[in-house]
Amino acid sequence: MFLERLILLRAAMQRSRLDAYIISGLDPHASENPPKRWQSRRWISGFTGSAGLLAITKDKAGLWTDFRYWIQASNELIGSGIELFRVEKEGVPKIYDWILEELCNVGRVGIDGSTVTLRMMSEWRLAFGNSSVDIVTRIDLFDEIWKDRPLLPDSDVYELDLHVAGESRLSRLNRLAAALKSSRVDTWIGVALDSIAWLLNIRGDDIKYVPVALGYLIFSEGRAVWYTNKERISKRLATSLKQDGVEIAPYEDFPAALGELRKGLRVLLDENYITQAVLDWLSPGVAQKFGEDPIVMMKSRKNEIEIERIHHAMIKDGIALIRFMIELEKSLCEGKELTELAVREILNSKRTELDGFCGNSFTPIVAYGANSALVHYGGERGENERLKLDSKLLLVDSGAHWEEGTTDLTRTLVLGDPDSRHIRDYTLVLKGHIAVSRAKFPRGTRGYQVDALGRAALWAESMDCGHGIGHGVGYRLGVHEGPQKLSKDPVDVPLEPNMIVSNEPGIYREGFWGIRIENLLLCHELSRGDFGIFLGFKTLTLAPYDLKLVDATMLSDEEVTWINKYHWEVCERLNPFLSIEEKRWLKSKTRSISN
Amino acid sequence: MFLERLILLRAAMQRSRLDAYIISGLDPHASENPPKRWQSRRWISGFTGSAGLLAITKDKAGLWTDFRYWIQASNELIGSGIELFRVEKEGVPKIYDWILEELCNVGRVGIDGSTVTLRMMSEWRLAFGNSSVDIVTRIDLFDEIWKDRPLLPDSDVYELDLHVAGESRLSRLNRLAAALKSSRVDTWIGVALDSIAWLLNIRGDDIKYVPVALGYLIFSEGRAVWYTNKERISKRLATSLKQDGVEIAPYEDFPAALGELRKGLRVLLDENYITQAVLDWLSPGVAQKFGEDPIVMMKSRKNEIEIERIHHAMIKDGIALIRFMIELEKSLCEGKELTELAVREILNSKRTELDGFCGNSFTPIVAYGANSALVHYGGERGENERLKLDSKLLLVDSGAHWEEGTTDLTRTLVLGDPDSRHIRDYTLVLKGHIAVSRAKFPRGTRGYQVDALGRAALWAESMDCGHGIGHGVGYRLGVHEGPQKLSKDPVDVPLEPNMIVSNEPGIYREGFWGIRIENLLLCHELSRGDFGIFLGFKTLTLAPYDLKLVDATMLSDEEVTWINKYHWEVCERLNPFLSIEEKRWLKSKTRSISN
Repeated sequence: MFLERLILLRAAMQRSRLDAYIISGLDPHASENPPKRWQSRRWISGFTGSAGLLAITKDKAGLWTDFRYWIQASNELIGSGIELFRVEKEGVPKIYDWILEELCNVGRVGIDGSTVTLRMMSEWRLAFGNSSVDIVTRIDLFDEIWKDRPLLPDSDVYELDLHVAGESRLSRLNRLAAALKSSRVDTWIGVALDSIAWLLNIRGDDIKYVPVALGYLIFSEGRAVWYTNKERISKRLATSLKQDGVEIAPYEDFPAALGELRKGLRVLLDENYITQAVLDWLSPGVAQKFGEDPIVMMKSRKNEIEIERIHHAMIKDGIALIRFMIELEKSLCEGKELTELAVREILNSKRTELDGFCGNSFTPIVAYGANSALVHYGGERGENERLKLDSKLLLVDSGAHWEEGTTDLTRTLVLGDPDSRHIRDYTLVLKGHIAVSRAKFPRGTRGYQVDALGRAALWAESMDCGHGIGHGVGYRLGVHEGPQKLSKDPVDVPLEPNMIVSNEPGIYREGFWGIRIENLLLCHELSRGDFGIFLGFKTLTLAPYDLKLVDATMLSDEEVTWINKYHWEVCERLNPFLSIEEKRWLKSKTRSISN
Repeated sequence: MFLERLILLRAAMQRSRLDAYIISGLDPHASENPPKRWQSRRWISGFTGSAGLLAITKDKAGLWTDFRYWIQASNELIGSGIELFRVEKEGVPKIYDWILEELCNVGRVGIDGSTVTLRMMSEWRLAFGNSSVDIVTRIDLFDEIWKDRPLLPDSDVYELDLHVAGESRLSRLNRLAAALKSSRVDTWIGVALDSIAWLLNIRGDDIKYVPVALGYLIFSEGRAVWYTNKERISKRLATSLKQDGVEIAPYEDFPAALGELRKGLRVLLDENYITQAVLDWLSPGVAQKFGEDPIVMMKSRKNEIEIERIHHAMIKDGIALIRFMIELEKSLCEGKELTELAVREILNSKRTELDGFCGNSFTPIVAYGANSALVHYGGERGENERLKLDSKLLLVDSGAHWEEGTTDLTRTLVLGDPDSRHIRDYTLVLKGHIAVSRAKFPRGTRGYQVDALGRAALWAESMDCGHGIGHGVGYRLGVHEGPQKLSKDPVDVPLEPNMIVSNEPGIYREGFWGIRIENLLLCHELSRGDFGIFLGFKTLTLAPYDLKLVDATMLSDEEVTWINKYHWEVCERLNPFLSIEEKRWLKSKTRSISN
């Protein structure tokens, strides 16, 4: 099947006089999970992973993907005619270099400009800059060859009320207009779906795990037009939008509308979000101004009502997690057969039972024993390991969209008696986690600086966490939301009051065990004085740590006090909603410790 | 005088049909201190500061400079016809915006392309991108109007022997050739003077405080040509260079040589070092490849002989500093009249007395009382404050070029009895300084991550250091040497074994006092294991802290141990070179402390 599709693609390449074709696997909005219509990478190759680049020449084809997908890809690519290239593995050529080599530095390479951001494009241009390879971006070969290509998503779109969103659509549009004015531009182009959802106070179900609706938006000189699958918009919503000056137009009209923007307009383009296609479609008469998308920063700073509601979401998440842990403990004591998948079902059921649950915010990870060392365990991988009370670790990473907001938390538990090596690693991870929670830093500090504070305890013991230790979180939007993050990468974005970040250091020992502890944090002001404003975090997540895995003698007095205070707060906030039995369980799990 | 010069410049602008002219103040090699020939900013404006941009239109002129120079500039610009713009002050327009405003977004702006790096140019292009302002870079108006413009510097140029450089010229040229090959280019253009000096193992005295010789270098297909003031090169040096395949050509021939590079050559260009002029002069037939200059990273990693010798330089610096402190203490006790300038002379004399002193590596800072809060105090500012034993602080920041290497150290002392507020600030700065010294981090860690570890102790007390806390240091080259630094800026350069960085956190309370403590550190490998290679620092500088300013109860056990161990090492390394009296003094200053 895949071989035939490759033949179709190569025929289309020939018709367009292309020597190579690149498939990014992204949709035109750079969504984390593209709708079926844009799952072209999967359609042509059979590869189901969430990250990877395909390159196809006249006689060869390759998939470049990172270590998370090597095993999966090598199975899925069998018979596809596509070779697997393991990204960053010693001796494996980079996709650019491979193409240059195959084409002997001369030729035409196609890539659908709507599936590549300007930032990615500049990397390609840099890589091909010294060759005679030209890049063609006004092209989508799948439109020609994919006969039964899925249509645009048509999920219901709904509005968030003012008491849910905390700010009216009109207010947001006005803030956008003001931001554009101060950047001396007059036109904003919405490509990222969460930015549009935030701006319009709407939500949908077009993207897995992210409650958004597919569309583009042009906001120009105070007038907004939303290009989306119009059929599924209710009359009521259309009226509401119209009242705020937002028109609706068919999704397909967007390219033409860009082409018709009047001469002299100054258009803001953020190369992290705007696709090459937008540039290709854009009227040549407009002035292109590159700069930061103001919506991204506005969206990241939650308003008071959002924060108030997120606190409620945390209570629900905490209740669900406690009920889950109690049932898990009980089932294991009773000797019930439980696979990782079954444990995931218990966790799901505890959330589903509560009011206001809108769905998971990502595929929950329930990883037992050596599986806990696989950072992205879950999804397509089986999860058939059977749990035993054998001192192994269980890592549970999950989150939800509640009506009150989006959550993400991780706890690592020991099943049975703890092992001293686990205790040491757990306590070190906890030290890093506490360091982030307790961090104090001047306004203007960026995530990479706080990241270092979180790692210091691990580094001191010659250990490190292989991933970033924090990401932004949306409000009933993506559980991974920019621009801020806590990672080693030099992302030049300051942490600001009312931003939410996760705090999730971890240690992974391949083949043995993995530990991760994750809370969500709210950034807020702590003090102001001679040296300016200082910020810190308030912990939002409410769930006990596994004290069986804590060696208090490795902790400072401040760290011990922090844990006891946090556990006290978990009880204080959750007890009103718990049964007597649940309260008793929680009390025992949050007993005061000392060093 | 300056008004007349401005008139000459404006006439030249008119002849070249320029609506504005920008003066960067840099020489064609982006040197920290340009030779007189390129002190055009000073010649036209009278401003003697080391940083500032001038913009001149038909009827207006402005100097943009940062807070360090506001007082100085406002005095020096009197009668020059040039307005002072205080950079980053609320309400002060940016130079780009001012020019756009003055030119109503239309016109021709000139800037001498040899005095601006490609990185700076891209900022200008970005700023003017949305306007009809064109930038002209193939121009140097000063050549027309500066009648008695100083000639090229002609200091003596000398060679470093193998036992001093630790690596032969030929070996360095071969390493450069290999690096170019692996980057798939064949031509390297040397613009930065320290890179050329390092590559050729030569030194000169063309730049204040940086022992280098003015020149350009083209290394293409294994053949090197050094464009410099040829007259001053000794026959012996010329022969030695020739033996290693390095030709010498007149400095003025460089532009033509660039233009004559043969078609098809692939030229490496690092936008941080290469000037716009190089691009303007470069033969259109060559392929431009942008990337990191390999010399910069090679130079930053010292070889074993350099390191061995630097240890000796540290001993000399330590001896000088101890003798200086003893004499200072004695003079003050005896009631001698001492100004800051006089103190500087004592310090200078202690270094000059020792063998192998080649000069200061920057203007020493001796700042007493409130002056210590001025980070860049010194130079042109008088330093007439008279020292008293009145509990005020004295900050001494100095460094030298020894035959064995370049040094930089800062100590802050209390004159008389300590004040509890000074003690608290000093101890906090010391905590940050120790945190950097003791830092352990995985290979690949960048300076901005270690910077955060150094600041954590200050941040916890709502304080911060207003400058970066570390910079690279050259080997008998610039005391400020890239690419690595410890600062908040997201400079994506890893710290590598054998790099040297300063460790100099500080606290400044304007109008009251400033504290800075600085040692040089050598980066080296600490361990390797499951989580890869971990690095840390070995402290190079040998000088006691002022224990009168240390509150040991604010320190952890590890910090106390670290200080005692460091002080023990200072004695151990310096004692063999000290008199009995000096040893006794040092012993008392390095007594063991406990918390």
